[in-house]
Amino acid sequence: MSLQVVEAIGFVAALLTTLCWLPQAFKILRERQTAGISLPTQIAFTSGVACWLVYGIALGSPSVTIANAVTLMTSGAILALKLRYG
Amino acid sequence: MSLQVVEAIGFVAALLTTLCWLPQAFKILRERQTAGISLPTQIAFTSGVACWLVYGIALGSPSVTIANAVTLMTSGAILALKLRYG
Repeated sequence: MSLQVVEAIGFVAALLTTLCWLPQAFKILRERQTAGISLPTQIAFTSGVACWLVYGIALGSPSVTIANAVTLMTSGAILALKLRYG
Repeated sequence: MSLQVVEAIGFVAALLTTLCWLPQAFKILRERQTAGISLPTQIAFTSGVACWLVYGIALGSPSVTIANAVTLMTSGAILALKLRYG
């Protein structure tokens, strides 16, 4: 595989795993229902993304930093909605 | 921050964002209820993780490969359960 193809796959991967949380956040805002979402999962995922953000900043990696900053916002919003709607 | 501290944060980040899906999968297996989980989110996330796995293999990165292989199993299981329970 050429390096361009590999980097294109990485870019698609980053887009998908970053933006995928938007439909979940909008679904909760629409339905106000979070009973099916696991609180331990949401706490661990949001904490993990926060660690990735610190890691990206410490390493000076713009891609790790930006991707995780965006994910932290949506994941944090989903966690806040889970805590609110239970 | 020393490189050891930075890498320790990266390791904790990888553990959290990899293993966090287990409680969600077990919750669904217990409750057989997935109405609150967004199907577009689960499809996009699982596809994104599959792309990260291909990226890790193509780059020859063991950490990217292993983390995403584990996540693909739990995320794929959550997607399959979502498709089953609706």
